[in-house]
Amino acid sequence: MKNSSYTDSPTRPFEISKDASIAAVLEKMKGISFQGRSLARALDIWCHALQDDCTVLFGLAGAMVPAGMRKIIVYLVENRLIDCIVTTGANIFHDCHETLGFHHFIGATDVGDEALHELKIDRIYDTFAKDEEFDETDKYVAEFAAELDERPYTTREFLYLLGERMSDLPEQGILKAASKAGVPIYCPAIADSSIGIALAACMKPEDKKVTFDLVTELSEMARIALKSASTAVILVGGGTPKNYLQQLQVTAGIMEPDIELEGHRYAVQFTTDSPQWGGLSGCTFKEGKSWGKISHKAQSVHCFCDATIALPIVVSALADRADELQRKSVPRFDLGSEFGIHRMG
Amino acid sequence: MKNSSYTDSPTRPFEISKDASIAAVLEKMKGISFQGRSLARALDIWCHALQDDCTVLFGLAGAMVPAGMRKIIVYLVENRLIDCIVTTGANIFHDCHETLGFHHFIGATDVGDEALHELKIDRIYDTFAKDEEFDETDKYVAEFAAELDERPYTTREFLYLLGERMSDLPEQGILKAASKAGVPIYCPAIADSSIGIALAACMKPEDKKVTFDLVTELSEMARIALKSASTAVILVGGGTPKNYLQQLQVTAGIMEPDIELEGHRYAVQFTTDSPQWGGLSGCTFKEGKSWGKISHKAQSVHCFCDATIALPIVVSALADRADELQRKSVPRFDLGSEFGIHRMG
Amino acid sequence: MKNSSYTDSPTRPFEISKDASIAAVLEKMKGISFQGRSLARALDIWCHALQDDCTVLFGLAGAMVPAGMRKIIVYLVENRLIDCIVTTGANIFHDCHETLGFHHFIGATDVGDEALHELKIDRIYDTFAKDEEFDETDKYVAEFAAELDERPYTTREFLYLLGERMSDLPEQGILKAASKAGVPIYCPAIADSSIGIALAACMKPEDKKVTFDLVTELSEMARIALKSASTAVILVGGGTPKNYLQQLQVTAGIMEPDIELEGHRYAVQFTTDSPQWGGLSGCTFKEGKSWGKISHKAQSVHCFCDATIALPIVVSALADRADELQRKSVPRFDLGSEFGIHRMG
Amino acid sequence: MKNSSYTDSPTRPFEISKDASIAAVLEKMKGISFQGRSLARALDIWCHALQDDCTVLFGLAGAMVPAGMRKIIVYLVENRLIDCIVTTGANIFHDCHETLGFHHFIGATDVGDEALHELKIDRIYDTFAKDEEFDETDKYVAEFAAELDERPYTTREFLYLLGERMSDLPEQGILKAASKAGVPIYCPAIADSSIGIALAACMKPEDKKVTFDLVTELSEMARIALKSASTAVILVGGGTPKNYLQQLQVTAGIMEPDIELEGHRYAVQFTTDSPQWGGLSGCTFKEGKSWGKISHKAQSVHCFCDATIALPIVVSALADRADELQRKSVPRFDLGSEFGIHRMG
Repeated sequence: MKNSSYTDSPTRPFEISKDASIAAVLEKMKGISFQGRSLARALDIWCHALQDDCTVLFGLAGAMVPAGMRKIIVYLVENRLIDCIVTTGANIFHDCHETLGFHHFIGATDVGDEALHELKIDRIYDTFAKDEEFDETDKYVAEFAAELDERPYTTREFLYLLGERMSDLPEQGILKAASKAGVPIYCPAIADSSIGIALAACMKPEDKKVTFDLVTELSEMARIALKSASTAVILVGGGTPKNYLQQLQVTAGIMEPDIELEGHRYAVQFTTDSPQWGGLSGCTFKEGKSWGKISHKAQSVHCFCDATIALPIVVSALADRADELQRKSVPRFDLGSEFGIHRMG
Repeated sequence: MKNSSYTDSPTRPFEISKDASIAAVLEKMKGISFQGRSLARALDIWCHALQDDCTVLFGLAGAMVPAGMRKIIVYLVENRLIDCIVTTGANIFHDCHETLGFHHFIGATDVGDEALHELKIDRIYDTFAKDEEFDETDKYVAEFAAELDERPYTTREFLYLLGERMSDLPEQGILKAASKAGVPIYCPAIADSSIGIALAACMKPEDKKVTFDLVTELSEMARIALKSASTAVILVGGGTPKNYLQQLQVTAGIMEPDIELEGHRYAVQFTTDSPQWGGLSGCTFKEGKSWGKISHKAQSVHCFCDATIALPIVVSALADRADELQRKSVPRFDLGSEFGIHRMG
Repeated sequence: MKNSSYTDSPTRPFEISKDASIAAVLEKMKGISFQGRSLARALDIWCHALQDDCTVLFGLAGAMVPAGMRKIIVYLVENRLIDCIVTTGANIFHDCHETLGFHHFIGATDVGDEALHELKIDRIYDTFAKDEEFDETDKYVAEFAAELDERPYTTREFLYLLGERMSDLPEQGILKAASKAGVPIYCPAIADSSIGIALAACMKPEDKKVTFDLVTELSEMARIALKSASTAVILVGGGTPKNYLQQLQVTAGIMEPDIELEGHRYAVQFTTDSPQWGGLSGCTFKEGKSWGKISHKAQSVHCFCDATIALPIVVSALADRADELQRKSVPRFDLGSEFGIHRMG
Repeated sequence: MKNSSYTDSPTRPFEISKDASIAAVLEKMKGISFQGRSLARALDIWCHALQDDCTVLFGLAGAMVPAGMRKIIVYLVENRLIDCIVTTGANIFHDCHETLGFHHFIGATDVGDEALHELKIDRIYDTFAKDEEFDETDKYVAEFAAELDERPYTTREFLYLLGERMSDLPEQGILKAASKAGVPIYCPAIADSSIGIALAACMKPEDKKVTFDLVTELSEMARIALKSASTAVILVGGGTPKNYLQQLQVTAGIMEPDIELEGHRYAVQFTTDSPQWGGLSGCTFKEGKSWGKISHKAQSVHCFCDATIALPIVVSALADRADELQRKSVPRFDLGSEFGIHRMG
């Protein structure tokens, strides 16, 4: 911000109007302050990334599928508003669960958890699930894994095959949509979830053991950065997805020391964490610049807002603005055991 | 929540659709989880209060006017979606400032504050103001106060008269709209703001001194509770407005021990604070029930969200639903030096 | 921080040793990071202020007396580790309550608040109080107020007299200790508390009405800044105490435009709020510099920690370091209806 | 809490005394409220777990080694105040870094991150590190990994061997101490860290590729729960360590459906997250009861406090109380490629 421009732009107090579209509401929020302005800016940066020749990397942490965000992610995948996903194992498992036709349930927080345990109901804040239905999904995952070859898989490959396997199911899901659209999904902490539980506890003694090739997949991700004209990160929460999507820049830099990497050129985080605790989940993109994870000239914003508010609003606005968001090109990935990347207009 | 109904209602994952109205988006958010669901519930409870024979009390803390919320509050007042306001002195002062034609400015957080000080620019997070324009507003308030009689005023009366005085200005503001609509505004910590600074530092030596009758106005507020069939609190932030709007129930109970008071029947808070710190700003309505501040059968929700996101969204949705929100009756107040309340259909 | 010194000081990982004093533990915490380092720095800055020729202003928000902090504040007053207090009405009321011999009780959060209401037990997070004992304290305050003259009082004067009145009670309290030690207490939002309830609801019809001279007391506070060689603020929480203690610098600047005021030279806040919400409670001292509230050369720290952890630890360490903290001078105040300030070695 | 006991225990306002030990200060904090009481309770529960015939599982998330916590964890391991660790890759890498003789540095937050990048200094909130020294640690890890056999390793085995390899270095570290003391360390998201970067980017083309057997190690952890008379979790932050340490109870339950597992009997979390966001990092132990992760009769507390404050204080107090904490027995683990558990008095 230049000195001369400190008081050039008055705030534009938000004016209520009937029947405004979501996109119009967010447009008006650019003229206000605090996190309202950040939310509007998050949408803008996402749009700028889509209009640039950019690979859009999406991080998804938190219990977002039980929270009702599955179809929003599906929308992002099917409309190629994102190109690659890094997520936690829980979101993968809960996506399978809903794609298999099971449900999460509208619950409450002020309930007796011991009584829930007796009834075999698991609570996720204000949302419930049936433990016995989780067992069914566990079994489905274990049966799928039992048919794999005896070799290490990247989680990207494992999840692509799992998505493919569900392709005939009537319900749409994130894995299914991603397999079909060619959007790779990485899950660096896959064993730290019910996917891990299924593999550790639900397979038959005679089944082959699944192992993961976590190292190869980090190289893969680094190659995505190396082969992209520019990259964007859209982060829902922090956790392993945020760290992983930032460290791939560092990894790429070590792999190819002769290439001048600039870091992510667009960076958005929807977060409820704060920087003062020193953790990576809450750290600023400004801090990321010292590491080379974020470009010095990046457009970036942290929007301090629960993603269950931010995602429905911002993605609805993206849908409103769909016509103007004709991407010039999208990256295409080969998702078999051999991974490849090329870009198509 | 009854045992039998724990798993009756599956979550309804949010479906993106183009050109959805805000009201439609919030309707869909009732089927999701976490704070997204809370936001939708906040709208619902506010609507229920309006459809009941209820007095709607509005608490406003935080730098909401610099943040661009002035016209939203004006809308709430003019359309009688709220009946009474308790706020901080800062919001009063900044409302005068904008009504006088001055502006707040779109700023940034990552700036040199020492340089701003040299330039006489005051920063409020990502928003700027010109110190010399604040001086003008100080003077306006001091000149207004110099013409008052030499007697203690309630802040309600003081602010009513200040709003009246601005009635000919071209810009609309909260005080102006409230004076015209007969919506009382209370400001229990009025001296803790630039209003206080104006009265303490900008009046001439020969001016009479302004004193405030804080005790009478608490009785007045308690009488609002006593004379209302039911009450609702819509709280933006915590601070003195939240405490004040809750303690009036306790005050009323002591004033009229023979009347069975139930506490507020509807309660909504948009908050970024949390209960675990033990403070009143972050405390739960559940805790308020132990004090009798909140009805045992209250509909209530805390929506953990920055108000600069929640207010534009929720009030836009209220506007969308305006036609169905025909209030049966609204309370009418006499706002002169004698305070009176009656209800009109 | 100079470029050349970026990597001059390695962190000193904390070494556990048996029977370390609190002061020694905090000394070791200066070598670590994040809020542990901030806590150690808060102690250091407080000590520096005491060793300078400085007036130490103390802000106290939150339900700190019910939380068991009363005797810590008494210690600070009696040992003149603070010179002036700004607090909320609730802390005043709860201090009277405990000084009168009543108690707060160790409770829990996971209880039925409706059952508590039936039993007339009020809950403050994990702490309980008996409603009927609160009624006794209400009466005590009302009876005290009934004997005042019919003229506006500053809250400083009102609280000085209330402290004096309790001087014969066996239990020590903040008001009592402050009256005796000549430490002024200001309460700009006094009516927003049970003190307000007592004055509004518990006085007899024939009693004179108490009014407050909030404007004069802001001038008084500004004069404290004007007459001090330098000032420090030690803030427990935010709320009205934080805003009030910062705005007195602005007020003083307008009252005496020819005096070059530098803002507070030492500034510590123990807080659980964050800057990103834009409110004053969570705003940074850096932001305060743009307003002239905080000196450009201030030593300052925000320690993000619940005060019920920070105060016992930091004040215990202050006690350990008492011998080295011989203040050169302390300000003396005349606390009668005429307010005066002078400094004594 | 029984009705009859609601007001049995008055709070005991904290009394300052000179030269109190840390243990004495925490003992006094049991009589206060809010997070001060939680901190005291965290110490108590940890002590109760140690005095019971219990396996103490320790979760470590956040940049705790750069923050100066390494030697505290070493102390816990060497004195067997914990029996097993689950942590993030970053803490492992930074522990290696400091054990190799490199340092983290006392930095600041208000610096130019672009300038830091030019100087090859990486920032972690208020702490710095030299990028070129990180490269050295990367190489050390890569060289270690190059010597492993060509088979999948559990992270527990990998980290045991890495700790052993550093045994001759002069500086003590967490991995070294754990290898020597027989305390297993698990790292379910190992590739999501500089350990992953080292393995992906710093190994020579001719080196064998490291793969991880994440599934076997989850079974191992579940067996720890199955073979323990009771278990405790002490959680520093949330993230993968918290989820992993809770899901092992679910895993064990599925592996051995005929054994009645009760969940963790003692549970402590030091956290800066909150439940209202719905994520696992901030979820309550009460919620964990619905899943069977936490015993219905568990002693548990969430202490909302930055770990860089809580750990130095609480572990210093544990050291003060060392004499009374003679554990009856500790679990012994075989940490080679074959994992075994037995308990020794």
